[in-house]
Amino acid sequence: MSQKIGRSTLVLDTFPSIMSYASVVGKKEGEGPLARYFDAIFDDTTLGEKTWEKSESRMQKEAVSRALEKGGYATMQIDYIFAGDLLNQCISSHYGLRDLNIPFYGLYGACSTMAEGLSLASVFVDNNLAGFTMAATSSHFCSAERQFRLPLEYGGQRTPTSQWTATAAGSLVVGKSARPPFVKAVCGGTITDLGIKDINNMGAAMAPAAAQTIKTYLEDSHTGPQDYDLIVTGDLGLVGSELLIDLLKRDGIDISGVHNDCGKMLYDVEAQDVHAGGSGAGCSASVLCSYLLKKIEDGALKNVLFIATGALMSTTSFQQGESIPSIAHLVHLTYNRE
Amino acid sequence: MSQKIGRSTLVLDTFPSIMSYASVVGKKEGEGPLARYFDAIFDDTTLGEKTWEKSESRMQKEAVSRALEKGGYATMQIDYIFAGDLLNQCISSHYGLRDLNIPFYGLYGACSTMAEGLSLASVFVDNNLAGFTMAATSSHFCSAERQFRLPLEYGGQRTPTSQWTATAAGSLVVGKSARPPFVKAVCGGTITDLGIKDINNMGAAMAPAAAQTIKTYLEDSHTGPQDYDLIVTGDLGLVGSELLIDLLKRDGIDISGVHNDCGKMLYDVEAQDVHAGGSGAGCSASVLCSYLLKKIEDGALKNVLFIATGALMSTTSFQQGESIPSIAHLVHLTYNRE
Repeated sequence: MSQKIGRSTLVLDTFPSIMSYASVVGKKEGEGPLARYFDAIFDDTTLGEKTWEKSESRMQKEAVSRALEKGGYATMQIDYIFAGDLLNQCISSHYGLRDLNIPFYGLYGACSTMAEGLSLASVFVDNNLAGFTMAATSSHFCSAERQFRLPLEYGGQRTPTSQWTATAAGSLVVGKSARPPFVKAVCGGTITDLGIKDINNMGAAMAPAAAQTIKTYLEDSHTGPQDYDLIVTGDLGLVGSELLIDLLKRDGIDISGVHNDCGKMLYDVEAQDVHAGGSGAGCSASVLCSYLLKKIEDGALKNVLFIATGALMSTTSFQQGESIPSIAHLVHLTYNRE
Repeated sequence: MSQKIGRSTLVLDTFPSIMSYASVVGKKEGEGPLARYFDAIFDDTTLGEKTWEKSESRMQKEAVSRALEKGGYATMQIDYIFAGDLLNQCISSHYGLRDLNIPFYGLYGACSTMAEGLSLASVFVDNNLAGFTMAATSSHFCSAERQFRLPLEYGGQRTPTSQWTATAAGSLVVGKSARPPFVKAVCGGTITDLGIKDINNMGAAMAPAAAQTIKTYLEDSHTGPQDYDLIVTGDLGLVGSELLIDLLKRDGIDISGVHNDCGKMLYDVEAQDVHAGGSGAGCSASVLCSYLLKKIEDGALKNVLFIATGALMSTTSFQQGESIPSIAHLVHLTYNRE
């Protein structure tokens, strides 16, 4: 059962375990520093489909199927899947997962989806509301570009603060076992909007949400940055990461020694010319469901805060002159059950 | 604590209570048969805003504020709000609720959002994960038409099977008390897709999802249609309702004597020329958060199954020739705690 230690902070007393996980990525991501941790790299990012949206759906399905397969689970064993994505009406998830016949709670958390889904999936297991649950999300550079920015064919110039939407999907199975990685606690985020309107600087828009959620969790859990091997956000990129560190320093919290960001980890940012780093719901999901969970499983990382951030605007709100509201959900992952 | 009586069916042992609720609607909805149950009717459906999206955001905020106010709750007392809507990237919820500072789990369930949100909000309260939670959703005829179909200015002709997107929002507060309405159980839906591709016949696309969830819950709870005063779907409209009744009859379940549909209840379907009835996330939300909860509160209805259905396509998936996947989530509401 979960213990409420703050308004939106729950300590999961049974330490739900991440039983299995998988990530699949595109060619560019497969050329990055985490290449050897992915379950599949698709050099053909169409995945043989006729449209980018269908490619993304297929990719999300691949991540889910591989997570099930690696753990030896049948779809019938999964009580719920919590999933969503960035596309209008979350069609990657709906079309990607429609054949699975797994009870489905649809989420919209933009790039925070994996942390949101993992939070709910873990809470359900911790309170015996489910035996096994799953979380999944995805993003695709080509479907995101044409929906949020410009069709690729325009060959538009990118600004230095812009981030590169990852072609990637991640999925995991949560259950109960004595094997790490464990989910120790979760902290739900609050919508934050400091008035930033630059759609090419999402990292800056999302940093305040990440700062708020991290601060809340550290306070609720009576811990500090020194208690963690890694505080990893996703996806603030270069610009947002610096801003996050500055924002927290103002509150007397220095995470600079333990912070990293999935948007900086997925690519060799300079060599791969991704400007301010990676983004997209699939970015933090694929970094989590490959390198991060593997390192925790192996005990190389023992205490990790995973904070996925989402920018909650649309092209319509942007065109109407609105600022960018953001959110960040936090999951505390551990190697030991203590 | 919740008892798992089926794969995705939970009996909520503490009977969370709907402490407060509110619904606000537009002019047309205010001319319908439920007019006297709404908290506000906006004859000017712009609500004084410059765009339809901002009007919808404002409407969702109004529903939430009024639900809080009627119950005498401050935003700080609410641990989580579960909300979403139909617009791309759920901007009605994000912009409508961004100033509230309530921890937010974003949902995408299309027109099933109120049942999805109420399910999660109730499960959180039942398991002491939260003191008070909220659920909210909205839809607006004008923002939906231009996003999903055609700009209003085109004056397009509507097909007989088309439904009318409600300009409406509903919200509620869940907590623990001895006062009805109570949430007795919830049943999470599974994505269903029988291959229907007619975007102007959503009721038909969603009926199989409703049939599946109702059947699952009746089996899991060992009950039959005769055990309920009302089995109310939202929003199948005229066409989908007939189909639902037929589909369940094939499985030996006759709900014809106790069935109604929020899409038929919100309007005087013939006189108000809404073709096959109402739809939109705000339709079932506003019917629930007005007439339905009031009747349960008063004991006029004692045992109600509320099943909100969602069509999970987008204009992009439609244009790419895809069929319409659907989902239905169920909430069992009661007057007595038994």
